[in-house]
Amino acid sequence: MPRIKCTISYDGTGFSGYQVQPGKRTVQGELEKALEKMNKGTSIRVSASGRTDAGVHARGQVIHFDTTLEIEPARWHIALNSLLPDDIFVLSVDLAKPDFHARFDAVGKEYRYFLLLSKHRDPFQRNYAYQFQYELDHDAMRKASKQLLGTHDFTSFCSAKTEVEDRVRTLKEIDFYEENGFLVFRFVGDGFLYNMVRILVGTLLEVGTGRRAADSMLQLLANQDRTLAGKTAPGHGLYLWKVFYDEEVLAIRK
Amino acid sequence: MPRIKCTISYDGTGFSGYQVQPGKRTVQGELEKALEKMNKGTSIRVSASGRTDAGVHARGQVIHFDTTLEIEPARWHIALNSLLPDDIFVLSVDLAKPDFHARFDAVGKEYRYFLLLSKHRDPFQRNYAYQFQYELDHDAMRKASKQLLGTHDFTSFCSAKTEVEDRVRTLKEIDFYEENGFLVFRFVGDGFLYNMVRILVGTLLEVGTGRRAADSMLQLLANQDRTLAGKTAPGHGLYLWKVFYDEEVLAIRK
Repeated sequence: MPRIKCTISYDGTGFSGYQVQPGKRTVQGELEKALEKMNKGTSIRVSASGRTDAGVHARGQVIHFDTTLEIEPARWHIALNSLLPDDIFVLSVDLAKPDFHARFDAVGKEYRYFLLLSKHRDPFQRNYAYQFQYELDHDAMRKASKQLLGTHDFTSFCSAKTEVEDRVRTLKEIDFYEENGFLVFRFVGDGFLYNMVRILVGTLLEVGTGRRAADSMLQLLANQDRTLAGKTAPGHGLYLWKVFYDEEVLAIRK
Repeated sequence: MPRIKCTISYDGTGFSGYQVQPGKRTVQGELEKALEKMNKGTSIRVSASGRTDAGVHARGQVIHFDTTLEIEPARWHIALNSLLPDDIFVLSVDLAKPDFHARFDAVGKEYRYFLLLSKHRDPFQRNYAYQFQYELDHDAMRKASKQLLGTHDFTSFCSAKTEVEDRVRTLKEIDFYEENGFLVFRFVGDGFLYNMVRILVGTLLEVGTGRRAADSMLQLLANQDRTLAGKTAPGHGLYLWKVFYDEEVLAIRK
């Protein structure tokens, strides 16, 4: 049965997160509703690279699903976008290998976090960036980022609710750049724990405002205690930017 | 009784337009609700430079109201912003002359219209710019704009529902610029009729795509017939950008 891979973008504002929940509007729910329409009422289960929380956005979420419909990727693209609501957009559609898995084959992810550098609320950014009015010491944040890079147990940087036992992850890149009044953090890693990016941002902001020492990250990691890290930054500044797969995994079956 | 002038910004997405309507969420309604709270339950009527339609945004709408409260402008600013919902923001507050009127004293307005130049929907821009996928001939649009500049009867460019009898207005500037994937139209004039900017945009887009001659604007104005102009462009691309007042009118009473 053909397996289809899609890269999708969504504005997380109107969703109770990615994952299906009874009675709630979710990204997965809307995707499965559109596919069910195309499939004449037969339900199709969609798998994603991972969940996103309520209010969190995606610029490059990856999903897959199986179908018996004999439709070319280009036509899937058009059909899905015509059936999906305005706040979800399918960026690309590919025919995948039959054993491709959006989640298990992912070898890395990139997240970005947008701060609106302003003393004032901006009604147009209220759902798309975290308004932050304090001066930030970029050197201090860069120093702290360096200590966070690499392979560590990130227990201190994940929600206490995390059920995953293995909390060792590799952070490959952390940087930030200013653009049009925003400060944008980039995080690339092999995988991220629940709330990990938002806690990393919250902690780096404490470093940037001088409330936490730039060279205290290794100790914080070693402590393996969530209560010692910074606040969880708000979800509406966060974007799942890209999901990485090995070339071989992606090679399309023809 | 002190008269207060405020410049405000709002995301029009969540409003049924500016003006109060029973049972609908409107900008004026939210402003008056906030003022009523400050005024311990006594209602205060707010006057604006003009209405905006459902979905239309503002970056520099001007309003005024009278108050018996003895509060400094800086404190009004903070208090109002703390009481207003996230999609309205007060940019500035001034003590006005007692006879200042946001609407009748306005000597001009600037509107901007945002086109998202893209073949694809962008979930993040769906409420903030009109997605437009066709090539536009800028020279043709510039020629047409020149014919529209100046003082004309704009009957062809206002909604047939317009009840105003005098449809003579002066367009002082029309131009457009590209920025970050958007084409932004700027319109400055002494006043604008109902739907006038959106019909101007719709007509210029027909010129830009070659469906209407660039030198046909004077004839179109002369015909004074709305049915001969272009379509009304969608409201969600439109921003009330600035309202102009004479310096003398603005001089603050101390």
